Amino acid sequence: MSALENLSRYMLETYNVMKDTGLLLGSVGSDGKPNLMTIGWGLMGIMWRKPVFLVAVRVSRYTHKLLEENGEFTVNVPGKDMSEACEICGTTSGREVDKFERTGLKWRRGEFVRAPVLEGCPIVYECRVIYKDNVELQTLPEDLVKAVYQRRDWHTLYYGEILKIHERI
Amino acid sequence: MSALENLSRYMLETYNVMKDTGLLLGSVGSDGKPNLMTIGWGLMGIMWRKPVFLVAVRVSRYTHKLLEENGEFTVNVPGKDMSEACEICGTTSGREVDKFERTGLKWRRGEFVRAPVLEGCPIVYECRVIYKDNVELQTLPEDLVKAVYQRRDWHTLYYGEILKIHERI
Repeated sequence: MSALENLSRYMLETYNVMKDTGLLLGSVGSDGKPNLMTIGWGLMGIMWRKPVFLVAVRVSRYTHKLLEENGEFTVNVPGKDMSEACEICGTTSGREVDKFERTGLKWRRGEFVRAPVLEGCPIVYECRVIYKDNVELQTLPEDLVKAVYQRRDWHTLYYGEILKIHERI
Repeated sequence: MSALENLSRYMLETYNVMKDTGLLLGSVGSDGKPNLMTIGWGLMGIMWRKPVFLVAVRVSRYTHKLLEENGEFTVNVPGKDMSEACEICGTTSGREVDKFERTGLKWRRGEFVRAPVLEGCPIVYECRVIYKDNVELQTLPEDLVKAVYQRRDWHTLYYGEILKIHERI
């Protein structure tokens, strides 16, 4: 089954977990070391005839550095028993902490990307960046800039082509 | 129920219809006249803490002119009996043809936007553009530029905040 067809089996659960507890964005730098970051925003669907997962990463983040180096990511839908790991991944930086050591989470490389595929996840997406856009603050409504970009620490929007969706890793 | 919660009830059906037959993008210009266009691409999810529907419109399109004038749109999920209307809306331009006259489709204004809400649709999204980005061809992979942008007629990516989702209009 193509990833385009496959996405319809998983998008609803993915959206609900993103909305309620967050997802784990996996990345890897040119040194091969993987990292994780908790995300609560993301878009899914079809763009350029491809299944796409769009994620947003602030330029100050360690994950941003890794995505710029490598252009690949995974989106890991955490299981219900992984809420502590999500908390840790959302409040520490991969610059200072090895999040896999800290959380005890196990991982393997993706089939199509070097970014980490987390074991124990009900759903994992492997994605390659095919387009990106640095959010231009002057294009956003002023109230949104005030609410989200007080520190002028804008996001890069990464459009990832979904190459593979894993079920129950 | 908030639109963020609500989206999880409708996104799967919306994705499936988009993938299989296309959706109808409704827009309205400063003269108040509505227009429709068939789309097969779109992303849904959460961005800037808001429920978002992202659509792509080529700069040559009449809908592009209307979105630039008005910054509002609707995404109408057509019913099964509307495939002929989708065909017409996908192959004619609102510059030359009144698509409502041609298709016989009935519409009303949205509650939050002036863009047309189509009667007979199982699901309709009312959206206001909160961010947009002109696709930069040099950022895309070369094979994708060749496949989609031979004529250098690029898309603007419109991020619409979902203000309201209608069911069974």
